Formats: sequence, C-alpha cells, structure tokens
Amino acid sequence: MQKLVLIRHGESVWNNENRFTGWTDVDLSHTGHMQAINAGKLLAKHGYNFDVGYTSVLKRSIKTLHHILEELDHLWIPVTKSWRLNERFYGALQGLNKEETIQKYGAEQVHKWRRDPNELPPAIKPDDDRYPGKDLRYCNLTSREIPLTENLSETMQRVMPFWVETIVPAIRENRKVIVCAHGNSLRALLKYIDNLSDEEVTNLEIPTATPWIHELDDELNTIRHYYLE
Amino acid sequence: MQKLVLIRHGESVWNNENRFTGWTDVDLSHTGHMQAINAGKLLAKHGYNFDVGYTSVLKRSIKTLHHILEELDHLWIPVTKSWRLNERFYGALQGLNKEETIQKYGAEQVHKWRRDPNELPPAIKPDDDRYPGKDLRYCNLTSREIPLTENLSETMQRVMPFWVETIVPAIRENRKVIVCAHGNSLRALLKYIDNLSDEEVTNLEIPTATPWIHELDDELNTIRHYYLE
Repeated sequence: MQKLVLIRHGESVWNNENRFTGWTDVDLSHTGHMQAINAGKLLAKHGYNFDVGYTSVLKRSIKTLHHILEELDHLWIPVTKSWRLNERFYGALQGLNKEETIQKYGAEQVHKWRRDPNELPPAIKPDDDRYPGKDLRYCNLTSREIPLTENLSETMQRVMPFWVETIVPAIRENRKVIVCAHGNSLRALLKYIDNLSDEEVTNLEIPTATPWIHELDDELNTIRHYYLE
Repeated sequence: MQKLVLIRHGESVWNNENRFTGWTDVDLSHTGHMQAINAGKLLAKHGYNFDVGYTSVLKRSIKTLHHILEELDHLWIPVTKSWRLNERFYGALQGLNKEETIQKYGAEQVHKWRRDPNELPPAIKPDDDRYPGKDLRYCNLTSREIPLTENLSETMQRVMPFWVETIVPAIRENRKVIVCAHGNSLRALLKYIDNLSDEEVTNLEIPTATPWIHELDDELNTIRHYYLE
C-alpha cells in the first residue's frame, strides 16, 4: 500500500479578497503562510516525510510546499514545478471579485462556471495582459497549450500527462510523494485518478493547506482517503 | 558572452559561532536570512534574472537561493539540488570551534587544514554520528562517494562532474544560471573553471551572500569577474 499526500496551497491574498485567481501569480496571505507552516508541523507530528515533491509554477503553491518541507527538515528533496499543476485558468474572470461577478452574470451562471466541469468561463484574447503567452515561465509552451479559458475537463486533460508521466513512475519506484497544488488542479487530478463523476467532482470541497492522505492499491486506485487534522 | 552568477550562502548559525560546519546542516542565522534577501534585491536592482538555479542539499544554501528567487519573483524556475555542491566535508573537525581547534592543534596546522588544497583534516569513522551514510539524503551515494574527510582537491573532484554534466550544458543552451553554494565548493569550482594554482585558490576569499558575476567566453573561461555591491 502506497500513501500519496495531496495538499492545496494556503490562503492566498485573493482567496481573502474573494477574487477569481486562476493563473494570476498572487502570493500567500499572512494566514496562508501560517496555514502552510501548520500543515508541515502536522505532517511532522504524524511522522510523514517525502522523497519527492511536485508543485505548480505559482508562488502560493511553491511557498506552501517550501514551508512544509522546512518544517519536515526535508528541504533537500527534489521538487519539480510544472505549469500542468497550475490552478484552472479562469479566462476573463481572472481578477474579478466573485460577488461583483454574481451581480453582473447572476448566481446560477457563476455557480456553473465554478462547478460545472464542462462550462467554459468567457475567454481572454491573446492581447489581454492576462494572456500566459506574455509570461516568461510559459515560453516553452505551444500556443495550443496556452489556455484562453478552461473548464475542469480541460484542466484534467493537461494535469493528466504530468500524473501519468511523472508522478506515477515515482510512486511505482516506491518514492513517497507530496503534491502541493490548487483547488481545481487537485479536483481534476482526483477526477482522473478515481474516475469521479461530474457530480462527485462538483461536490468535492478541498480545504486549504490540509494534508489529504490517499492510500492507493497496486493499481493506484484510492482505497481510503482522509485529511490529517 | 555569457554571465554566470555564483553566490555563497548567507551567514549560518555556525559561521556566527565560529565552528567548522562542512556537511552539518546548520541553518542561516537571522543575519544570513537578511543577507540573502538583500542579495536578491541587489540582483533585481541590476536587472538580473535566471532560467535555472543550482544549489547544494544543505539548507543554508537552499534557503539563500529561495530568498533570492523570491526577491526576483522567479520562484518558478527549476532548481536542482545536488550533494556535489555541498561544502567541503571537514571530517572530524565538523562541529568544533575554530579557536579551540587552534589551541589544540596549533594555528599553523589549522591554517593548513583550512587553506592547503592537499591537506586532509582528521577523518571520521563510519560509526561517527557525523557519517553522511546515516543521512537519508545521501542514501543513493556509493560508499566511495561518501567522504570521511576531504581536502579541497577532493572537493573539486566531486564538484567537477556536476559542472561538466549539468551546469555547462545549461550555459551552452544560453540559459541564465545561478549557482548558490558554499565557500569551499565555490573555491573548488573556480579552481577547476579558471585553472587556479594552489596559491591562488588559497587566497580566494568569497564573501557571504554577495552576487559574484563571471563573464565567460565561448570556451567558458572567465574573462572578467566582479561582485555586485
């Protein structure tokens, strides 16, 4: 039996301001830093340690993992950062306040954008300041890989290769893995790993900075999962 | 012309206590953290950024690089941590106070241990608590690779493959490289790159957390080097 530890980053400045974040590289809030440190202490208390870590290229997630590894005195393990673990790209909603978006588009539409795995938020255009193609960190992506908007199914499509090609081989080599990512990239990952229905994935609420332990069988299906608290 | 940026970690708790550190994984002091942050600000002010970072598996060096990348808003670049960039392994001197060591062995001997590239400090035995083979992070090293003591020439021998096989290819691909390491692993690296004599390397004093810019020609020889201040 293998244990895979998933964790969503600590509270970000925009979680706090109730704005759609997506690929915007917002920092952890003070609370977010504290949450990440506490997650590390909790993992240490329960005797966890890791051989390898994976995270996105967004600082809220990178810093959360750094805090955790610092608390575990395991800063020395290899950490791979991939855009494939980034939060869902929220298109033209990125930066908008969620409350204002509800007033403009109605609660039902906003709920759909947030939770219907097939609903696409309004797309940005490549001349938008939020277009990832303008950001150095995405300069090796093909234009097809750079999103203008994303629904959860599309997020899953780009998370999946990283799971199959990078994380699975590490687990198969009996390496103890921690994945620190985002609400929707973790949802997408779980939808793929556990073959969740649209409804199940819609109802999946992942708390910030709470170690989420997945016990996997030999086929890497989840046998049991629980949060460390 | 390529620019390679080398930097020694910020002050550690043991630099501060005047103890031989080597592979002991001591943390940055408060001053060390501040130095690292300032090094990052300085690099940012001069318009530096990086495509890839290299550091040791020791936290004083990992944290220094993390502070720098945080200041540059470049936490997302790939960072490779290797034991080959570790500080010189100081054998049985590790943990000893330098002043006490001078009283015990004499100033001349201690000076030799510290600066003669061919002088070996007293070795530890594998049953010593300081034996790296007891530390998880070195579990993939062969017993020949695990040091019992090291002179600077031996440090150079194990730094060299990392330079040749990992850093040089990155420079050849025109990637902007930062190497954050230790007084003696940087000395060893420079001895190799610039073919320094024993005397030159002996006189090489590398200040903590000060960006050291090396302008390299096409054969990767140093044309010019200077500290950012």
